[in-house]
Amino acid sequence: MNFASDNGAGVAPEIMRAIVDAAKVNTPAYGADDWTARAQASLSEIFERHVAAFLLSTGTAANALALGAVTRGWNGIFCHEEAHIQDDECGAPELFAAGAKLVGMPGEAGKITPQVLRETLARYPAGLAKSVQPGALSLSQASEAGTVYTPREILALSDIAHSSSCAVHMDGARFANALAAIGCSPAELTWRAGIDVLSLGATKDGALACEAVIFFDPVEGADFEFQRKRGGHTLSKGRFLGAQMEAWLNNGLWLDLARRANAAAQRLSRGLEACADVRLIWPTQVNEVFVALPSALLPPLRVAGARFYAWSSRAIAPGNEPRPGEAFIRLVCSFETSEAEIDQFLAIVGANCRQKQPAI
Amino acid sequence: MNFASDNGAGVAPEIMRAIVDAAKVNTPAYGADDWTARAQASLSEIFERHVAAFLLSTGTAANALALGAVTRGWNGIFCHEEAHIQDDECGAPELFAAGAKLVGMPGEAGKITPQVLRETLARYPAGLAKSVQPGALSLSQASEAGTVYTPREILALSDIAHSSSCAVHMDGARFANALAAIGCSPAELTWRAGIDVLSLGATKDGALACEAVIFFDPVEGADFEFQRKRGGHTLSKGRFLGAQMEAWLNNGLWLDLARRANAAAQRLSRGLEACADVRLIWPTQVNEVFVALPSALLPPLRVAGARFYAWSSRAIAPGNEPRPGEAFIRLVCSFETSEAEIDQFLAIVGANCRQKQPAI
Amino acid sequence: MNFASDNGAGVAPEIMRAIVDAAKVNTPAYGADDWTARAQASLSEIFERHVAAFLLSTGTAANALALGAVTRGWNGIFCHEEAHIQDDECGAPELFAAGAKLVGMPGEAGKITPQVLRETLARYPAGLAKSVQPGALSLSQASEAGTVYTPREILALSDIAHSSSCAVHMDGARFANALAAIGCSPAELTWRAGIDVLSLGATKDGALACEAVIFFDPVEGADFEFQRKRGGHTLSKGRFLGAQMEAWLNNGLWLDLARRANAAAQRLSRGLEACADVRLIWPTQVNEVFVALPSALLPPLRVAGARFYAWSSRAIAPGNEPRPGEAFIRLVCSFETSEAEIDQFLAIVGANCRQKQPAI
Amino acid sequence: MNFASDNGAGVAPEIMRAIVDAAKVNTPAYGADDWTARAQASLSEIFERHVAAFLLSTGTAANALALGAVTRGWNGIFCHEEAHIQDDECGAPELFAAGAKLVGMPGEAGKITPQVLRETLARYPAGLAKSVQPGALSLSQASEAGTVYTPREILALSDIAHSSSCAVHMDGARFANALAAIGCSPAELTWRAGIDVLSLGATKDGALACEAVIFFDPVEGADFEFQRKRGGHTLSKGRFLGAQMEAWLNNGLWLDLARRANAAAQRLSRGLEACADVRLIWPTQVNEVFVALPSALLPPLRVAGARFYAWSSRAIAPGNEPRPGEAFIRLVCSFETSEAEIDQFLAIVGANCRQKQPAI
Repeated sequence: MNFASDNGAGVAPEIMRAIVDAAKVNTPAYGADDWTARAQASLSEIFERHVAAFLLSTGTAANALALGAVTRGWNGIFCHEEAHIQDDECGAPELFAAGAKLVGMPGEAGKITPQVLRETLARYPAGLAKSVQPGALSLSQASEAGTVYTPREILALSDIAHSSSCAVHMDGARFANALAAIGCSPAELTWRAGIDVLSLGATKDGALACEAVIFFDPVEGADFEFQRKRGGHTLSKGRFLGAQMEAWLNNGLWLDLARRANAAAQRLSRGLEACADVRLIWPTQVNEVFVALPSALLPPLRVAGARFYAWSSRAIAPGNEPRPGEAFIRLVCSFETSEAEIDQFLAIVGANCRQKQPAI
Repeated sequence: MNFASDNGAGVAPEIMRAIVDAAKVNTPAYGADDWTARAQASLSEIFERHVAAFLLSTGTAANALALGAVTRGWNGIFCHEEAHIQDDECGAPELFAAGAKLVGMPGEAGKITPQVLRETLARYPAGLAKSVQPGALSLSQASEAGTVYTPREILALSDIAHSSSCAVHMDGARFANALAAIGCSPAELTWRAGIDVLSLGATKDGALACEAVIFFDPVEGADFEFQRKRGGHTLSKGRFLGAQMEAWLNNGLWLDLARRANAAAQRLSRGLEACADVRLIWPTQVNEVFVALPSALLPPLRVAGARFYAWSSRAIAPGNEPRPGEAFIRLVCSFETSEAEIDQFLAIVGANCRQKQPAI
Repeated sequence: MNFASDNGAGVAPEIMRAIVDAAKVNTPAYGADDWTARAQASLSEIFERHVAAFLLSTGTAANALALGAVTRGWNGIFCHEEAHIQDDECGAPELFAAGAKLVGMPGEAGKITPQVLRETLARYPAGLAKSVQPGALSLSQASEAGTVYTPREILALSDIAHSSSCAVHMDGARFANALAAIGCSPAELTWRAGIDVLSLGATKDGALACEAVIFFDPVEGADFEFQRKRGGHTLSKGRFLGAQMEAWLNNGLWLDLARRANAAAQRLSRGLEACADVRLIWPTQVNEVFVALPSALLPPLRVAGARFYAWSSRAIAPGNEPRPGEAFIRLVCSFETSEAEIDQFLAIVGANCRQKQPAI
Repeated sequence: MNFASDNGAGVAPEIMRAIVDAAKVNTPAYGADDWTARAQASLSEIFERHVAAFLLSTGTAANALALGAVTRGWNGIFCHEEAHIQDDECGAPELFAAGAKLVGMPGEAGKITPQVLRETLARYPAGLAKSVQPGALSLSQASEAGTVYTPREILALSDIAHSSSCAVHMDGARFANALAAIGCSPAELTWRAGIDVLSLGATKDGALACEAVIFFDPVEGADFEFQRKRGGHTLSKGRFLGAQMEAWLNNGLWLDLARRANAAAQRLSRGLEACADVRLIWPTQVNEVFVALPSALLPPLRVAGARFYAWSSRAIAPGNEPRPGEAFIRLVCSFETSEAEIDQFLAIVGANCRQKQPAI
């Protein structure tokens, strides 16, 4: 019953097999290998245009380096106030973006609205020397609240950002989950909706440690090779990144794994909703479930070995905040989460909660 | 016949097995796992004192972050003028050390001498505001010329450095090779000789992607957790670093692999020395062979599939520089280099060179 | 009628005289001169303890370098969300603090409250690697809203900050104005209330271009000489900074000038309050007046040559925000502002506004 | 007898008068004033093209910000190994250029030769990710050895630099001295010879504290306003920079002052050459004299109150180095240096030295 993080999961067998196979040959170092070349070709194919794609091993690096590539030190980088880049990367974006300033924006359920974006950008007028200059908008897909932006929502935001000379970055640590949930094409969810650069995460979705930074206009990535190297993020045995990415994309594995994680979260979410005392804080759209439940439920869950994090957020709709006596927790499912784990969890909850009365 | 780099090699089977096994369990993320804890304990045991050890996936990151941990932006970092941190990391040390200045020093065979170090430090007087202030000395063990520092040599240099308020860093991308060559203890080659922080590389010596930054005084590493995270170098599925390091150290595997690579280089070196037209540029002390040979030898070697780099250096003893008509090349052996590969290479050389006349 | 900024004023005659005199002698460069030594001695005397004081020429540099001296790149710097360091320095603190993250906090009238500080710090737990680590609290005295913190208020905040391992910085661009308004001693308003480092601004208070960074514990400033030099902020003809600071402090000139500016603002503020249609947004405590007045008043004021800025803020008490039809403006007085200027401004306002009815 | 530095001098009366006058009016802050506008117009006129010019108060800031404007963090900045930016700015260029790497080159008399530049650039191939990428060449005019580059020499170097994608920067802390010595036009010595950005120093040549960063293609300086502000180098009472620059340029004052300093150095140099025991280390081309003289001369000079620095350099022609028993000193003249001071110095030297025998 490990619902702490999708980072706790192992590695999809198809991906591990690719790693083991890639170890068998002596190849050129630093990404000049066939696996990497094939992975890059797959990405161009999947995104339906020639992209510049760079592989690396952490999502924090992917985000921070991508943002550093499209901004300068006197820029502002606009994001949700609880975005991963703002709250969970210990200042990595500031390091790689030469001290650029992250500007957080409020927004229910982890999502930025056009109105708030417009109002915030208005506080940073172009050309006013005392103000950091708008440089990038970063959207998290899926968001930190486990919610997704539709292509139409992304387009509305990226239009505003582009009008203010901002590049648009997508933190896609859970991009596959979002894509599987929405059901559109990768292109529709990214460059067709105005995304300039994507951090595409495979690690949470079955890889060992593999992320890609994808520039939809390859010219934008012209210096990225140097930035990645300077960040210490160019793996010497680079083929192991290529092998992971190739296997992850192959035959739609990435979406299969994401669908499994999403489905597990749906099962968990529906089961929890059946309890009168459990409230969803945000809708379950990908592989994360955010619920408020009676605090008294925590000890039996912990005793039974369930692992999950207590949560907190300023992005909750008024009236829906956790109440006294309630615990607010996050439950994350991975491609490995089994129905048995979920049902065990639900059984403990069910045994300690009233069930909802069916509407008559 | 791949002598281009030890980074081209695969992964030692023992290490790959550990990776595969580690994938089977759901564990806490970000290094809070048992594999990592065991690897850290092994490092303390091997170095005969309680160390603070942090795992990450590239040598460039290990060097740059280690240097960043012991310096500030107004410091000078003193190193050989052809050190990896100076020539091969695209400015990573400057990034992670907040703009500190690398000061290169000349030195035959890739090694710094006490005299040059003293003279160089004298140009950066303590307290003179216009000068960067001495912050760190970085020694490469083995050096970029494939040579090693003895414990006594290290001590002489670290004493000078400490007198100038410099921390002493060792770039140990090939530390195991050096240790195997010298035959002393890990402690003797590091903290007992004045080393404060070590970048210990496993990748070139059989791992997939695994390096450790080791602070011999744990207090010095008190903030390293944040620095690593901020660099995007904290792997979410951190157990795969722990598993590699644990397996690498287990039962002396690291030294076995290093000895294999060193022995291969010795075989290659001795074979080349038998040719009258081939000259060693520097002595073969670890797993790298640097030779000058007739340029006419290059085409047949390339045709036969041999891979290696043309080299150049300012660290060659006067009189020993490559001459017109000679090519200067680097040949690197790994734990996987087979005798067959070496003998094939030597056969091509031998077929095109005069053999030395035995002394009568 | 220049109420745009106290930066628009000229130079107090006593200070200009000191500059002219200092030009007459050939002296050692870079601050090793007698004027600077005397200015440093004066600061120690005025603050009633031996301080380490460094002179430079802009307030942005003073703030950013001071913050850089007491933090590292993985720190958070906590400040009011509309602080000068956050909104008006184009990212200078991030540059000089190696990418540290500024964390803005809301607070009425530009002031941080203990409760908000406590809640904010709680979001950055010590030791949690994904979070920037609390490094500094920065208080603006006077605040961006022209209000002041009492010594007691400062102490309450600095106690909380120190408990979270934060150094406490004071942005004293208008310190003299605040000190004159409060009437306590410089020591009471700073180190006795827990301030570790002060940016003390003379420029807005009659100097040409002169600020001091003052470490109340000289050990904290041990490396500042290098940081200042590295920032390009060590003037070669440093005696001109020393001469300004010495003259500014001499015979209480600094407080006389501040009192003049404060008194001018009081006259202006009281005059405006007499109009029924004009509302103070925040109380007038130093040399700035923030008022909401009928938008129709702006054209006649502009036509008459009055200069001032339209303002906006999120730090206004609920219910006191500017209303439709009102303009929110900032009026700043300097040591040079004349009663005639003020009365001319008030006459225009009065001619276009209803006067308040005296209470019967 | 102050020959320590031209920074020890005072302020030319014409410039001081302009400062005093500029204090008399209340004006817009941050450089939006008439003095600054007129200074900028003068610079465009003097350089015979429309330039983007930015004023600030130190030469270190001018150099570091200019280099930061034309490079990125993964660039190399190529300069003489004893350039001011390399040896005397405590890492300022690295700070403002986001950690770019300074690459020093040897060269007699402080000057870089085309051959050394070509060889050095060859070590940094375009596109090789492990190498910092060539970003800028910086030339010092006059050099640290008090020598000058002719327009033809500059052109040869800038052609090479441009071929390697380097911008060309000129550190013109003593540009006026060089220009006066060479006698060409400002345009010929800069953009017509391939200079892209110039740090133009007035401080050493009679100003209080005033330097300009000049982009000959204004597009290159499009973001400089933000970079300067972020560096804390935008003076709030910016008119005092404008006033200095305007007065300095007015009626050729800058060249008059430079000629005075150069002439003083010539007188000193010729006087010293008359002594058999004194040798010029480098030719006296501007306002600095570098000589080797008997060490026994130092005490009487010091006793008489002469101030100067002992010097050292690696840029001396073989055979011309200081010998045992000789002291190597630098003597700097300023616009204020009087003939009396020089003659007093020469008298002491003459009294303790043999005079050269006139050739018969």
